[in-house]
Amino acid sequence: MLTNMSQFFLRTLRDDPADAEVASHKLLVRAGYIRRVAPGIYTWLPLGLKVLRNVEQIVREEMANIGAQEVHFPGLLPREPYEKTNRWEEYGPNLFRLQDRKGGDYLLAPTHEEMFTLAVKDMYSSYKDLPVILYQIQTKYRDEARPRAGVIRGREFVMKDSYSFDMDDEGLGKSYELHRDAYQRTFKRLGLPYVIVKAQSGAMGGSRSEEFLYPNPMGEDTFVRSPGGYAANAEAVTTPVPEPIDYADAPAKELRHTPNAGTIADLVDLSNELYPREDRPWQASDMLKSYVVALTHPDGRREVVNIGIPGDRDVDEKRLEAAFAPAEVEQATPEDLAKHPELVAGYLGPEAVGPNSPKRTLDEDGNPTGSVPFYVDPRVVEGTTWIAGGNKVDHHVYNLVMGRDFTADGTIEVAEVKEGDPAPDGSGPLELARGIEIAHIFQLGRKYADALDLKVLDQNGKTQVVTMGSYGLGVSRVVAALVESHHDDLGLSWPMAVAPFHLQVLAAGKGEEISNTAQEIAQAVSDAGFEVLYDDRPKVSAGVKFADAELLGMPYVLVVGRGLKNGVVEFRDRRGGKSVEIAVEDAKQMIISELEQNRGSAK
Amino acid sequence: MLTNMSQFFLRTLRDDPADAEVASHKLLVRAGYIRRVAPGIYTWLPLGLKVLRNVEQIVREEMANIGAQEVHFPGLLPREPYEKTNRWEEYGPNLFRLQDRKGGDYLLAPTHEEMFTLAVKDMYSSYKDLPVILYQIQTKYRDEARPRAGVIRGREFVMKDSYSFDMDDEGLGKSYELHRDAYQRTFKRLGLPYVIVKAQSGAMGGSRSEEFLYPNPMGEDTFVRSPGGYAANAEAVTTPVPEPIDYADAPAKELRHTPNAGTIADLVDLSNELYPREDRPWQASDMLKSYVVALTHPDGRREVVNIGIPGDRDVDEKRLEAAFAPAEVEQATPEDLAKHPELVAGYLGPEAVGPNSPKRTLDEDGNPTGSVPFYVDPRVVEGTTWIAGGNKVDHHVYNLVMGRDFTADGTIEVAEVKEGDPAPDGSGPLELARGIEIAHIFQLGRKYADALDLKVLDQNGKTQVVTMGSYGLGVSRVVAALVESHHDDLGLSWPMAVAPFHLQVLAAGKGEEISNTAQEIAQAVSDAGFEVLYDDRPKVSAGVKFADAELLGMPYVLVVGRGLKNGVVEFRDRRGGKSVEIAVEDAKQMIISELEQNRGSAK
Repeated sequence: MLTNMSQFFLRTLRDDPADAEVASHKLLVRAGYIRRVAPGIYTWLPLGLKVLRNVEQIVREEMANIGAQEVHFPGLLPREPYEKTNRWEEYGPNLFRLQDRKGGDYLLAPTHEEMFTLAVKDMYSSYKDLPVILYQIQTKYRDEARPRAGVIRGREFVMKDSYSFDMDDEGLGKSYELHRDAYQRTFKRLGLPYVIVKAQSGAMGGSRSEEFLYPNPMGEDTFVRSPGGYAANAEAVTTPVPEPIDYADAPAKELRHTPNAGTIADLVDLSNELYPREDRPWQASDMLKSYVVALTHPDGRREVVNIGIPGDRDVDEKRLEAAFAPAEVEQATPEDLAKHPELVAGYLGPEAVGPNSPKRTLDEDGNPTGSVPFYVDPRVVEGTTWIAGGNKVDHHVYNLVMGRDFTADGTIEVAEVKEGDPAPDGSGPLELARGIEIAHIFQLGRKYADALDLKVLDQNGKTQVVTMGSYGLGVSRVVAALVESHHDDLGLSWPMAVAPFHLQVLAAGKGEEISNTAQEIAQAVSDAGFEVLYDDRPKVSAGVKFADAELLGMPYVLVVGRGLKNGVVEFRDRRGGKSVEIAVEDAKQMIISELEQNRGSAK
Repeated sequence: MLTNMSQFFLRTLRDDPADAEVASHKLLVRAGYIRRVAPGIYTWLPLGLKVLRNVEQIVREEMANIGAQEVHFPGLLPREPYEKTNRWEEYGPNLFRLQDRKGGDYLLAPTHEEMFTLAVKDMYSSYKDLPVILYQIQTKYRDEARPRAGVIRGREFVMKDSYSFDMDDEGLGKSYELHRDAYQRTFKRLGLPYVIVKAQSGAMGGSRSEEFLYPNPMGEDTFVRSPGGYAANAEAVTTPVPEPIDYADAPAKELRHTPNAGTIADLVDLSNELYPREDRPWQASDMLKSYVVALTHPDGRREVVNIGIPGDRDVDEKRLEAAFAPAEVEQATPEDLAKHPELVAGYLGPEAVGPNSPKRTLDEDGNPTGSVPFYVDPRVVEGTTWIAGGNKVDHHVYNLVMGRDFTADGTIEVAEVKEGDPAPDGSGPLELARGIEIAHIFQLGRKYADALDLKVLDQNGKTQVVTMGSYGLGVSRVVAALVESHHDDLGLSWPMAVAPFHLQVLAAGKGEEISNTAQEIAQAVSDAGFEVLYDDRPKVSAGVKFADAELLGMPYVLVVGRGLKNGVVEFRDRRGGKSVEIAVEDAKQMIISELEQNRGSAK
């Protein structure tokens, strides 16, 4: 189709929007693809909508290729099914909740596991009906605490979510692999680089899960890679657990005066000065750092928890969140601490918390109570020796031995992963990088089918709970990731497969001959089945047209200008930056042939 | 594409759903096109989604034909713009409202006038940019008091809404006509009968507006037609006002005892018995019927209002609602009446209300107050004589003359329109019919542009407020209307233009020859570019397959069955009901040619 720019609902901006930090946000707004309506809520203008639909179409085709069937569930859903799976509560403030005129509770769906489960329960009853894969491409809602980066982390966004239903683990494994392959093909066709990393399942539940990340320094997700092929989201990295250490000869613990040791660094210096050890200097990794956090459980209950990690590491906020999900976690407040006077600020050590506390008893159900729960990093194994808080102002306890002087309620993965840490599978030292999550695949197992009673008859006529997978792909986020991966200082630069127009034609100069020629070539390329944007704006300088063409980022640009009097036009490849002069009489055929070759490669 | 029914996410039901009253609701659920999730909220299963997308595509093409450009606004919108146009309040309980995690007010958009206005304000600044027509096809929300009839009146539904922006009335008129024509072409291509009727603008504001109705006895909308070509929604019908009557010789009013006259009919009988008139018997049209209603204004204020209409007519609920919109109206409750002791239940007459009441005074601003407002039907003109309530139990007042004995605060159009009433334009007696509103076009004028300050520079360099039109088309409702107009006792019967599959192929009988032949023909028709559903289900009887094919309603059905041994297959036209035997060797070519002919006619 041929679109005249003079009539097109488009205005480019000279300046970046004030609230934009990342390239995709800046460029999509400046080039007139999207507009902000509210935090994390965007309008798709004609250009943006074309790209979004092109991405959807590729996703749709690859879903069809694995036999997935498209349906469409409502965005507005009743509370009840989400109540049954506990997600009404677990989603916490991330869920948009509302009431209808009769006071019924509703939500704006963030994902649709419940509804797909109920649909299959409604329609199917036998193993013969399975496996089945269903999907939708739909507007989703999540009330993000910090919407950011334009459509990368929005509160209203477009997602492809699919769900698989199988009789057994083997079937689930196959459905999972089908999606894994389909996603790889999808991103390849889209021209978007990706890495696949192990992931945590989080609020979804289930066993195996992987993320597809577009690697980019501005990404919110940290992931790791090893030379031997291990790859995981930082939240999913597990720490190799050291062997226990024989502590038979370890010296006895000792409470020592440690004035003004407000930080780990101070404590190391002071220890080396006042209480030097013989074999080597004290170092940060000898210290057991204490974190006091407060959890807010989905039912609203608030709980204070203590965590001990080696002093040479910080807590990673995202690993902390992941470790305690679905509870929300934050630093304990003075009010929290006031309820636990045994937690001496700055000098808290293991002996005052968890199983080590004299306040620890068992409640009626046999569960530990009375003291603050205490979890340690997996490196804190039996026999390791620590300097820890002495539970007394200006005092620390030295030679505190795990398994002898204290124990914990369990281990927890909240310490930061560092460049060079060993991969958990022994495949070498880890390298750290950042990326944008563009897809996530989950083996859910039977969590949702159990909660919603999705059973079918098996081959022996017995009812059996179905096992499920859930597979998301962030369609609107992919548009932004494509911009991050396809732009330069001058503007956007779309791959053929998703470009809103394949060719932009500029009439760069005055006179009817120029505009007639431009119009004629544009029409011919359009007639050949391509999307052509013709910059026919009168009284707009060639310079402005050039700059707009660079900003808008169509893969190919044809300039009909001064060269025309010598019988040539200029054909530019936006991505390659190449520009060639071609004879005007060959232009139509050459351009169509070039475009056809490149469209072909997109599939 | 070829779809095997054995793998298709589809189950047909033997029985109608318990909550379904209309054919489209029953059939769409039974045939596995949609499923109910909550009142007025439906899931589109694969078959239903295909029809919905086909309708969308036709709508999209016809919008493109008038130069409309597609965009996509969020469904979740901030309160502010709707506050500026007053619709945040005016929409009352029909609007889904919610708060985000920070307490910000949001709504689920029922229509997007505000957002389109702001978008044009953001992008355009000159008369040279206009006219422009923008549209979207989008999920909309309306918290209907009585969602009903499946997807006909839903709370979540798909709508095409477009908006035109022009400099002047002439331009608006053109944009309006473009839409009117586009809608006519759209419904013609869809194969959906329609009538265009004058409509009230309701909460939208603006001047001219028309509805497209699909005429059907189960429709919620009553409309009228005259032999001379007048057509209007019942809410929009205006009553021709009679000439005033000279009342110089009218007898004086007289309060009379009228015991046990609880109804108009009783009062007529009793009057004829006790107080007969000489020229003719009393009749219902001599009585002035009194209605007391309570309005709830958008700001929450409750107001009691009295209405007088001729005794031979009832109040039409929808005309009543339309007359008082955006206020909500209901019968006055005992609590309302208790606040107005002058309103004697059953015997209320004009002399106790409105300007006639001794309680009527003027407030500080010069507005009438103190007595209940009183409105009359336009037929209650000066000089008309009435029997009305005597404002005293068991009493009525006779010979009460409008303009002599009482006046009103104004006239109001709430009385029912009757078959045979005169058309307001003198084009003859009205005929009444019912229909389903499938589209609505409005000349909004400058209401939204004024409220949101959308101005552009005109040819003289002066800022000028833009004038707008708004044009809705109920995409999901059209799917239901198509079912109402295309079904029979056996099931659905889709027009080619929207059918989810063009051809259904049945393997009706055992043996590989039958299934191989069916499969081969199905594949050939699919390869020719048609959507083919192949009923390959093993162990399902021919009878069940026939019944399902009738229920599912594809335009053409091919039966490969017992005839095959004689070299023939059966080709059925679902709509025409015709069935022909064709030689198996000619089948592919004949079917493809028949389908091509009919697909062609759909455009």
